[in-house]
Amino acid sequence: MTVHILTIGDELLIGQIIDTNSAKMAQMLLEIGAKVAGRTAVGDDHESIIGALQQATKQADIVLVTGGLGPTKDDVTKKAIADFYGVGFVFDQPTMDRLNMIYERIGKPITEAVSTQCLMPQNATVLTNKMGTAPGMWFEEGGKVVASMPGVPFEMEYLMQHEVLPRLQERFKALPTAHRTLLTCGEGESTIAEHLKDFEENLPPQVKLAYLPAIARVRLRLTVSDPDASFVEKTLEEKFREMEGLLPPHLVAGYGDETLESAIGRILKEKKLTLSTAESCTGGYLAHLITSVPGSSAYFIGSVVSYANAVKMNQLGVQANTLKQHGAVSEQTVREMVAGAIRLLGTDFAIATSGVAGPDGGTPEKPVGTVWLAVGNKERIVTKKLQLTKNRLLNIQYSAYYALNLLRLFLM
Amino acid sequence: MTVHILTIGDELLIGQIIDTNSAKMAQMLLEIGAKVAGRTAVGDDHESIIGALQQATKQADIVLVTGGLGPTKDDVTKKAIADFYGVGFVFDQPTMDRLNMIYERIGKPITEAVSTQCLMPQNATVLTNKMGTAPGMWFEEGGKVVASMPGVPFEMEYLMQHEVLPRLQERFKALPTAHRTLLTCGEGESTIAEHLKDFEENLPPQVKLAYLPAIARVRLRLTVSDPDASFVEKTLEEKFREMEGLLPPHLVAGYGDETLESAIGRILKEKKLTLSTAESCTGGYLAHLITSVPGSSAYFIGSVVSYANAVKMNQLGVQANTLKQHGAVSEQTVREMVAGAIRLLGTDFAIATSGVAGPDGGTPEKPVGTVWLAVGNKERIVTKKLQLTKNRLLNIQYSAYYALNLLRLFLM
Repeated sequence: MTVHILTIGDELLIGQIIDTNSAKMAQMLLEIGAKVAGRTAVGDDHESIIGALQQATKQADIVLVTGGLGPTKDDVTKKAIADFYGVGFVFDQPTMDRLNMIYERIGKPITEAVSTQCLMPQNATVLTNKMGTAPGMWFEEGGKVVASMPGVPFEMEYLMQHEVLPRLQERFKALPTAHRTLLTCGEGESTIAEHLKDFEENLPPQVKLAYLPAIARVRLRLTVSDPDASFVEKTLEEKFREMEGLLPPHLVAGYGDETLESAIGRILKEKKLTLSTAESCTGGYLAHLITSVPGSSAYFIGSVVSYANAVKMNQLGVQANTLKQHGAVSEQTVREMVAGAIRLLGTDFAIATSGVAGPDGGTPEKPVGTVWLAVGNKERIVTKKLQLTKNRLLNIQYSAYYALNLLRLFLM
Repeated sequence: MTVHILTIGDELLIGQIIDTNSAKMAQMLLEIGAKVAGRTAVGDDHESIIGALQQATKQADIVLVTGGLGPTKDDVTKKAIADFYGVGFVFDQPTMDRLNMIYERIGKPITEAVSTQCLMPQNATVLTNKMGTAPGMWFEEGGKVVASMPGVPFEMEYLMQHEVLPRLQERFKALPTAHRTLLTCGEGESTIAEHLKDFEENLPPQVKLAYLPAIARVRLRLTVSDPDASFVEKTLEEKFREMEGLLPPHLVAGYGDETLESAIGRILKEKKLTLSTAESCTGGYLAHLITSVPGSSAYFIGSVVSYANAVKMNQLGVQANTLKQHGAVSEQTVREMVAGAIRLLGTDFAIATSGVAGPDGGTPEKPVGTVWLAVGNKERIVTKKLQLTKNRLLNIQYSAYYALNLLRLFLM
């Protein structure tokens, strides 16, 4: 089955928003063995949407539409889809009931604009959106499927996972397909690719290896598709083992859906160990990554974000002399921050960060992007210096992930 | 002049790469008043590329193509463009000279794959790419322009800036266009739309209003396009003032590129006030948002992420009795957290959060999504209870943005 993705919204065309939905949808589709054949973006314009739908339904079996389902006037997708099919609207009581519940809970009256969300094209199957007010819609005509979802990323993801993908799997008989993923951390795509060069070149045609790089991490996804389901299972198992065996063990950080932060959480939980952070340049982002994992309260005690030097001294016990002699961005300071966090918050381990995140604040000796990391327990502290970019947000993210990886290696 | 963007590459269709080029190109085009009418992505496939070129040149005056110009086998754009025009190839000596220079400098021999980069469609004007080996190409036929650039972001940006945009400005007289944006915070899209209903309905055709919703915020963008530049300027000024006047003042959080966090930073900086946070359910995310703003060290002192109750008591001075009687997720606890952060970190203001982020940990009285926020100074503390979703990450983000908005309202 071939899929065309149609994204709708003026904000996409003027470049105000980067389209992350398309990539996410493509990844989700791959997991059920569906291939994206093409992608179109149009503005919030009635004629353009209809034209794009005509084109897309000619080219693909399935057209997935995102965007333009909100209650405001610039959102015209629903009307355009109805006109594309030449149908009118019907009032959908279940949607009204759901909206009533939502607005009751937040204690606000339903506006006229909101209530128009209950009007649905006559031929639509309503897809319940538990993450927002605008429902999704499913259409089948002439052997082609059109599914429409809101453009808000988490609403789209919810509807894809719970409504669209299961329907597509039922509707189209997909080739037996299976995936396994391996999370690596600490080396870039090209280094990983060197380790896997021969492996990749000799893969049978039913097996595909994809590199999914992210900050400080590369996820490897192995996919096998074949009419013979037992071949799929056997080959995936074999090739996955072979691939993992070719990588230096310290690069392997997790499996499946694991993230670096959840993999670390799993280890800490198993070993009944606790963690705290003492953050300067990461400004709370490291604690955020750790606490984004459900159940992290079992091992994460807390963090001191010591943006001001006074907090480094008064809370974390960094010596005034250390700051004076070596500066806040130094190996000595992050060492004392780790020791201070362990003492103050009573944890087995602590991570500390201090750096020049930028864009300003650099000096010739410590230019923007200079970061010191430390990880340790009561017995031992390891440190690492990074020389990162000129981009503040990237520096924060890199520092946090490298620091987590330093902890992972420390725990190994 | 209308522009269509055509991006080429299998890596885009399988979701391996997020397409940031399209947004960047659209932004660059806006600056010369050119409007992107649509966007298409296709794989590295000869027929798909030709089909997309036929469609795109029908719909727009200018088609900007990126991707598929490298020397590797899966890059087929050049051949497809030549076939689209029905022309053969010629050898381009200046490109060969440039490649010779580059390869001499890096001390590598030119491979056959690389030398094919000197073959150009007969009707192409070669655009010199000083950032890489693959040249750009410019085509004009039947009043339509097609410009082809490599997909590597900084090569594309170089060619856009130095070759494509100047040619477009010379070739097409663009309609004068200007934008202004307003950031609102605290109400959803539909409530804002109610305030602006009459305004929107009576806008002249040269003026467009777009709603760009994000978590707890809605950005409003007003765009004016008209052949008369002074009309554009005057109308934008007038309509923007009118629009702002129709909104309750407490909803207006910032202007232009301002974010909620940078707008708050601007106020704190102006008033020379300092801020700290005491976070439980937001787990450092609030501090991260605040410190993502360059220069935030001028007003942000630090944060205590008190995930464990022991940290709430030992660091922030929350009374054991308060936790026992009311629980960690309570108005009393967040009040004491604010007072504790102000005392401990010596700041003018503090924000505190405590809630059940989920997916587990809810009780009948405090289900998942129950969050208490507090904001205050030494004199006064205000609190707010939220009843959010079942999604952990969403609850964290909502809590942080609502807490920032509570501080903004407190500062007003």
